Amino acid sequence: MAWLGQPVLIEELLFKTQHGIVDQSLHARMGAEPTNGDGFGLGWYGAGEGPAVYRSVAPAWGDANLRELAAHVESPLFMAHVRAAIGSPVQQTNCHPFRRGDWLFVHNGYLADFHTLRRDLMLAVDPELFGDVQGSTDTEVVFNLALTFGLEDDPPAAVEQAIGLVEAVASRHGVPHPFQGTIATTDGESIWAFRYSSERNSRSLFYTTDVPTLRKLYPGRQLFQEVSENARLIVSEPLGDVAGVWNEVPESTYGIVGPDHAEMRPFQPKVPSTPVPVVG
Amino acid sequence: MAWLGQPVLIEELLFKTQHGIVDQSLHARMGAEPTNGDGFGLGWYGAGEGPAVYRSVAPAWGDANLRELAAHVESPLFMAHVRAAIGSPVQQTNCHPFRRGDWLFVHNGYLADFHTLRRDLMLAVDPELFGDVQGSTDTEVVFNLALTFGLEDDPPAAVEQAIGLVEAVASRHGVPHPFQGTIATTDGESIWAFRYSSERNSRSLFYTTDVPTLRKLYPGRQLFQEVSENARLIVSEPLGDVAGVWNEVPESTYGIVGPDHAEMRPFQPKVPSTPVPVVG
Amino acid sequence: MAWLGQPVLIEELLFKTQHGIVDQSLHARMGAEPTNGDGFGLGWYGAGEGPAVYRSVAPAWGDANLRELAAHVESPLFMAHVRAAIGSPVQQTNCHPFRRGDWLFVHNGYLADFHTLRRDLMLAVDPELFGDVQGSTDTEVVFNLALTFGLEDDPPAAVEQAIGLVEAVASRHGVPHPFQGTIATTDGESIWAFRYSSERNSRSLFYTTDVPTLRKLYPGRQLFQEVSENARLIVSEPLGDVAGVWNEVPESTYGIVGPDHAEMRPFQPKVPSTPVPVVG
Amino acid sequence: MAWLGQPVLIEELLFKTQHGIVDQSLHARMGAEPTNGDGFGLGWYGAGEGPAVYRSVAPAWGDANLRELAAHVESPLFMAHVRAAIGSPVQQTNCHPFRRGDWLFVHNGYLADFHTLRRDLMLAVDPELFGDVQGSTDTEVVFNLALTFGLEDDPPAAVEQAIGLVEAVASRHGVPHPFQGTIATTDGESIWAFRYSSERNSRSLFYTTDVPTLRKLYPGRQLFQEVSENARLIVSEPLGDVAGVWNEVPESTYGIVGPDHAEMRPFQPKVPSTPVPVVG
Repeated sequence: MAWLGQPVLIEELLFKTQHGIVDQSLHARMGAEPTNGDGFGLGWYGAGEGPAVYRSVAPAWGDANLRELAAHVESPLFMAHVRAAIGSPVQQTNCHPFRRGDWLFVHNGYLADFHTLRRDLMLAVDPELFGDVQGSTDTEVVFNLALTFGLEDDPPAAVEQAIGLVEAVASRHGVPHPFQGTIATTDGESIWAFRYSSERNSRSLFYTTDVPTLRKLYPGRQLFQEVSENARLIVSEPLGDVAGVWNEVPESTYGIVGPDHAEMRPFQPKVPSTPVPVVG
Repeated sequence: MAWLGQPVLIEELLFKTQHGIVDQSLHARMGAEPTNGDGFGLGWYGAGEGPAVYRSVAPAWGDANLRELAAHVESPLFMAHVRAAIGSPVQQTNCHPFRRGDWLFVHNGYLADFHTLRRDLMLAVDPELFGDVQGSTDTEVVFNLALTFGLEDDPPAAVEQAIGLVEAVASRHGVPHPFQGTIATTDGESIWAFRYSSERNSRSLFYTTDVPTLRKLYPGRQLFQEVSENARLIVSEPLGDVAGVWNEVPESTYGIVGPDHAEMRPFQPKVPSTPVPVVG
Repeated sequence: MAWLGQPVLIEELLFKTQHGIVDQSLHARMGAEPTNGDGFGLGWYGAGEGPAVYRSVAPAWGDANLRELAAHVESPLFMAHVRAAIGSPVQQTNCHPFRRGDWLFVHNGYLADFHTLRRDLMLAVDPELFGDVQGSTDTEVVFNLALTFGLEDDPPAAVEQAIGLVEAVASRHGVPHPFQGTIATTDGESIWAFRYSSERNSRSLFYTTDVPTLRKLYPGRQLFQEVSENARLIVSEPLGDVAGVWNEVPESTYGIVGPDHAEMRPFQPKVPSTPVPVVG
Repeated sequence: MAWLGQPVLIEELLFKTQHGIVDQSLHARMGAEPTNGDGFGLGWYGAGEGPAVYRSVAPAWGDANLRELAAHVESPLFMAHVRAAIGSPVQQTNCHPFRRGDWLFVHNGYLADFHTLRRDLMLAVDPELFGDVQGSTDTEVVFNLALTFGLEDDPPAAVEQAIGLVEAVASRHGVPHPFQGTIATTDGESIWAFRYSSERNSRSLFYTTDVPTLRKLYPGRQLFQEVSENARLIVSEPLGDVAGVWNEVPESTYGIVGPDHAEMRPFQPKVPSTPVPVVG
């Protein structure tokens, strides 16, 4: 889930919304794993330099500190993520969002047979970044690949190459359908959200088109009556039960949501021009 | 879940069994809460003095230390419990089993409106025990009430009075149906298991009658071919999918399972003869 | 440690100060325990309703979430506390500050033989408050006693009665010198800080008298050049090595620090007029 | 600390010994960091297949589960380690001992500027092992290098090459004195303990020569009166205050301690014959 708009108390969207992300962590309706209890992460922009990141291995629904934070921190742009560990350990350094400088990065999905692909992918990470990889998840490696391929300059091109590399390495190892999921990344100004899977059967991704929609969705919620015109919410699963107010991002598509615009474009992984190193 | 029999590696019953307790913590089939991710506890008898207790607030399915323990500790008598926190904080001191001396105590259920009843119940706890209450759950109070009423001498009578007191105090406060659940307690020799609820609609409780049943249940499992004749397994939900091999403990009934016997008797709470203290 | 002044990033005082509280958690110079690694708590006022509380059982020096919070939350009034567990479990609900409504409460010290005194003290807690006691520390009981005796209306009188009760109960049980330490409490506007011990040998307590002092203390720190004239810092141990800039609160004394004033008065426990209940 | 002898309750050596490892975690007397509160690990051999590993990020002195385990698990061979994190995150996967198959590995020390060396060292790890690296510590990399160089066949030669590689890579990056510390590794039968530092100023390492020494050290401890003749204890810092009963392993030396023998030999790192891969 990601929010971009005027500053709101994080709990407004995290806890006080029907089918909000914490409720979803208990009972995901459309996700692949029924319970997402293996860690939680929240990244936000506000006071201080760059984004803050709170990560916890306690299930989101029982984390007292998360409730405190959400009830007392306001932010104009934040991302929340619940994790269902698939193979890698339940530890803070494996919780999303991952961060570097002003950038945050979350991934709702997985790399198939990451154990096999891991070394080759790590070798393709910029040596300057290698030493800072702290966890053992596939997502942190994909983030570092995207940084290696220029995330900070051209996010779509960088993610296209990162996933292109994943698919090339997987092909070399005979791993089919290696990438699955949705990715969201932000520099604190705009959010880029990608929906893609190698087998073209990706996890869901939705966004609200405009504030009038939000106001229709939450007629009784004063907050959204006062919300700025350009606010946007991006989610894996629709919040609330009001039909017809969410736009689904199509397969193999990414969206850019900024303070003054929102658009969608086709997404197509590209093998990076830099040759993939092969080390014996 | 409780095991009484010859020493086995705990993982044999905790992890290697279909619909075992850890699997159940993710997807309880018959319990009241669909996910039990708010803590885990394991008590066992073996080396050292008295029972050992391992308690963790990590969900059971992702707790690396629990897997290690279960794979490397053998015990002839152990109890495991997964917790779905209902109101009280997720912390180790709120995880079952509770222990005093040689005794372990678990409860799968709750006290209705415990917040209202708590003070009066705590006042009825033996002052010698009061200082040792470390958590904030209803179960720890019920355990201490049972100890107050002589658990170590006559477990059924002590539990009858503990629940009788709960019902008396609840009645005074106008709280209907205050007790719900199953209780199991052990001194390291025998296990007493109670099924009772004030509204006579209790959570389920099952036990295996005899080892031939276990052998039928797990024909391919060498362990149960070698298991002693008097081994017993007590569970909230049947393990495995083999029909007809579990005996359900009836409503308002308790069972005693010892090394050489197993029997069931009716259970009826009794208001303790000691007057309940009323403090202004 | 407590800060009252203009909003600052919490890390300015928590991490970026020589001999700051996190450094002190590793190497307390004047405290009773050399290492305070049994939990950390931070309470702050800012966005949202009432104070926020972050509590962690990880040692303060290694808690990544605490660093994030401190670097990205601004507050005009906050309190931080490091804990060295003396007898009671290391768990979040035992970490200070304790909170009720708008109030925060921290205690740097202990109740002697709390195990013996606990029941009688708990019985004196307002029954309306009893159900909300979540941890097992002496401090949470003292806080609830102070609330019982009117903390929200007259903090000094309430603390005097709370400690007076502690001393009366201890006397009845033959426990000498029952109270030790410093207490700080705040309603979000003013801070009351008490230094007292039954044996008149209390832990240290210091405060900065005025901002010119702070500017002298940190000549190179731009923050304090810009700080408001009425800012105040209250600490258990002086920060920094500049001699002569801290005022020690004398034995058996409390101070009130508000936005426009700061004064000290003598402190003398009083046995509460309400008779202490005695329950058999 | 490592124990090799007849099965003992782990607490006998972990908690019940003056200046034992848990006490040392609070107040190391000879170590480089005064407080070792950033995680604890215990590996032991006993029931079940291969060694068990318990790892915790709670400080050892406050970890209730560790006390339970230590009081109720007996083992003829175990290793305990307390960690003071130097740069890498406080998480279970960074706690020693590290394990592969029947082998355990602990390191009391560090690699200088590991951030710079990490990538080149990781590239030298056998690709079959790379995918299983779960944490981000220098020690886990050194362990995997030792496995790469044949730890399971010839431990001293493997450790010599692992450290030789560290020194070669460090030299290429201009990092002086890259290795510091003591290493202990075991296959469940024997223990190999190494004392070495690139600058020839290593952390301390001691062992008990024979059981009569232990009996002299603990005259009142019944355990050691009954201990088998060939028991051995290996420690970073001497336990107890009895002078003259510990043998210090000299600089640049390793010892082999097995059920029937104990000897010391000189240790000299060797650059591995396999060329170190260089990847652009």
